[in-house]
Amino acid sequence: MSSLIDEIRELHAGGKMETLPKKPIETMEGLSKVYTPGVAEICMEIANDPAKAYQLTIKKNTVAVVSDGTAVLGLGDIGPEAAMPVMEGKAVLFKQFAGVDAFPICLNTKDADEIVQIVKMIAPAFGGINLEDISSPRCFEIERRLKQELDIPVFHDDQHGTAVVVLAGLVNALKVCGKKMEDVKVVFAGIGAAGMACSRMLLKAGVRNLIGVDRQGAIHRDVEYSNPHWTEYANMTNPHNLSGSLSDVIVGADVFIGVSGPNILTVEDIQSMATDPIVFAMANPKPEIDPAVAAPHVRVLATGRSDFPNQINNVLCFPGIFRGALDCHATTINEEMKLAAGLAIADAICPEELSETYIIPNVFNPKVVQKVRDAVIRAAWETGVAKSGEAPAATLHP
Amino acid sequence: MSSLIDEIRELHAGGKMETLPKKPIETMEGLSKVYTPGVAEICMEIANDPAKAYQLTIKKNTVAVVSDGTAVLGLGDIGPEAAMPVMEGKAVLFKQFAGVDAFPICLNTKDADEIVQIVKMIAPAFGGINLEDISSPRCFEIERRLKQELDIPVFHDDQHGTAVVVLAGLVNALKVCGKKMEDVKVVFAGIGAAGMACSRMLLKAGVRNLIGVDRQGAIHRDVEYSNPHWTEYANMTNPHNLSGSLSDVIVGADVFIGVSGPNILTVEDIQSMATDPIVFAMANPKPEIDPAVAAPHVRVLATGRSDFPNQINNVLCFPGIFRGALDCHATTINEEMKLAAGLAIADAICPEELSETYIIPNVFNPKVVQKVRDAVIRAAWETGVAKSGEAPAATLHP
Repeated sequence: MSSLIDEIRELHAGGKMETLPKKPIETMEGLSKVYTPGVAEICMEIANDPAKAYQLTIKKNTVAVVSDGTAVLGLGDIGPEAAMPVMEGKAVLFKQFAGVDAFPICLNTKDADEIVQIVKMIAPAFGGINLEDISSPRCFEIERRLKQELDIPVFHDDQHGTAVVVLAGLVNALKVCGKKMEDVKVVFAGIGAAGMACSRMLLKAGVRNLIGVDRQGAIHRDVEYSNPHWTEYANMTNPHNLSGSLSDVIVGADVFIGVSGPNILTVEDIQSMATDPIVFAMANPKPEIDPAVAAPHVRVLATGRSDFPNQINNVLCFPGIFRGALDCHATTINEEMKLAAGLAIADAICPEELSETYIIPNVFNPKVVQKVRDAVIRAAWETGVAKSGEAPAATLHP
Repeated sequence: MSSLIDEIRELHAGGKMETLPKKPIETMEGLSKVYTPGVAEICMEIANDPAKAYQLTIKKNTVAVVSDGTAVLGLGDIGPEAAMPVMEGKAVLFKQFAGVDAFPICLNTKDADEIVQIVKMIAPAFGGINLEDISSPRCFEIERRLKQELDIPVFHDDQHGTAVVVLAGLVNALKVCGKKMEDVKVVFAGIGAAGMACSRMLLKAGVRNLIGVDRQGAIHRDVEYSNPHWTEYANMTNPHNLSGSLSDVIVGADVFIGVSGPNILTVEDIQSMATDPIVFAMANPKPEIDPAVAAPHVRVLATGRSDFPNQINNVLCFPGIFRGALDCHATTINEEMKLAAGLAIADAICPEELSETYIIPNVFNPKVVQKVRDAVIRAAWETGVAKSGEAPAATLHP
């Protein structure tokens, strides 16, 4: 075990990324074109027409990975320095999977106003903002205000990346079971940032009967919640206004999706579900139920872990979604684009390959980024938020 | 001419830099070491000991190039988007000349308090801050406060980079003329940010008789200046308290250094100087006197331009100075380190090569970065601001 840690430490030593010139400067003449005096021409072009920043600077291909280190992985509030390895890792994945340049911005403040202000002020270099590991409920306000006040895409991956991949998994799990979004009963455990976003995505995708459960039990309309997000949640879910514990409301459910904590789901709970139960137990590193224990009792099982089949992994989403948004110069990443991304991920597995243990494509499958990108661009065009480029013909007319 | 501009535009298209993984991720196993779950180990090591950020993140080799776009080259206040090509260029030069990773942070604010606050908040990712093209007098306060409040080096290149290279040039010009720092009369034109810093550097290097001239004439102690920096300047320069115009005070001077504006120096002014006049006419792109006009009347001529000999070019300074500061984990870049850098640049030309038209080494001479680095590390150690690493033996005991 200690040798594994040494190996991991070595991979992180000195950081995992670097900044590189696209072309080396080898002569005084080259220097005078790339830097002063030649660069002055380029500066003046942009000063006269700020939109040219997209042609003449790194902006069009560069994303900021912004965190305040308050909700890092399952580790909690470990601060901006300790969050850096995750944000560097994210930047590395952006480049490796989608050719997107990314840079970690780890902020030494937890103040939502200050975070919003800083991100707005540093935005000139960036074509997009990926918010990461910012604790709830501040993450909602920070994202909402940045989306409102910036004209570049802002995307909180913990919420929406998870939501997109959960949608993809559910689409395929339902295909395996021969069930339909409109008909299934879905019980959702853990109504924090990711849970809210996943629920919204599933409603957008056609789910009608969705019940959210948190520590106090099912979220319904007969309680006054101090958390306004739960009031909103109660109003958009739980059509039969069920109350009670997870064990109460899961009876007859087709799908359980958990982004909560370890060991809240029992075999008895699963046994009370409808036939062909689908269980996504995504709490990390310890799922809502031990996958080995759950497996014999479910039709389809997915987790957040790489050591079981069907890993719900955000890496399937954020590279392609930003690739698409940047390529069409989208001003935002809207619900339609996320929905399209989720369906595109699902679609990366051919029907004949689909099975109980293969509902989520492999992250190294290059088709995924390409399909997500194309679908996102098409959705951006259809919803009028794309400013340049064009949707590939093949996807414009599928 | 238009083909040159097209060529320059092509070199800037899509930006001049990219972010790259140091090692590609090729397998699920690799992914689980570089990203979750393996990265959690690394995060916790830093959370438990923040100093480990220097070993396990990009911090120790990464510099932010920070600008608000208010004083870009000779172009003035063109804004953060239009400043990007210069800051990208700077980042490219950092990497190419010294292996330092750098990233442009162009800020959409001119408020000094806000700039200080933002730089402090984004500092966790960075091992150093290079301030660039921020207008005077705000640049003084911003640098002073950041130096005070951050424990990483902060360096305003327009001030100190210029000062270091001017010092290097003057050291060699005086050698060529057989004169000494202590004995010469130096007239300095343009007492803004760069002029203040250059003057301080020359005083630190031993110049005793230095007179600053700005639009109102010589800066002396019989005037009450509204600019407190000029009051301070008057108190540390002009030992004989001379007043009058540039033409008045330049009589008998050994050295003229200009960082002011075009065509303020005449041939008659030069003819009134001491024998073997040294003229650094560095206003860019139009010097204080046309170099072709001045040349026949001076012993040594330097400019900021690459199309004449003796170009005073900051590229000689900032890569090596940050390379040294980062390598010894210096908490600041102090006067001693800058002085050492200037002398090291001068020293990169062997005595036998030195001549009127070769007082400044070529920027592509790799000895320069190495010498500056070593000298900076030695000075950091000698002044107690180095936190790790060691000065190379060869320079510790020269």
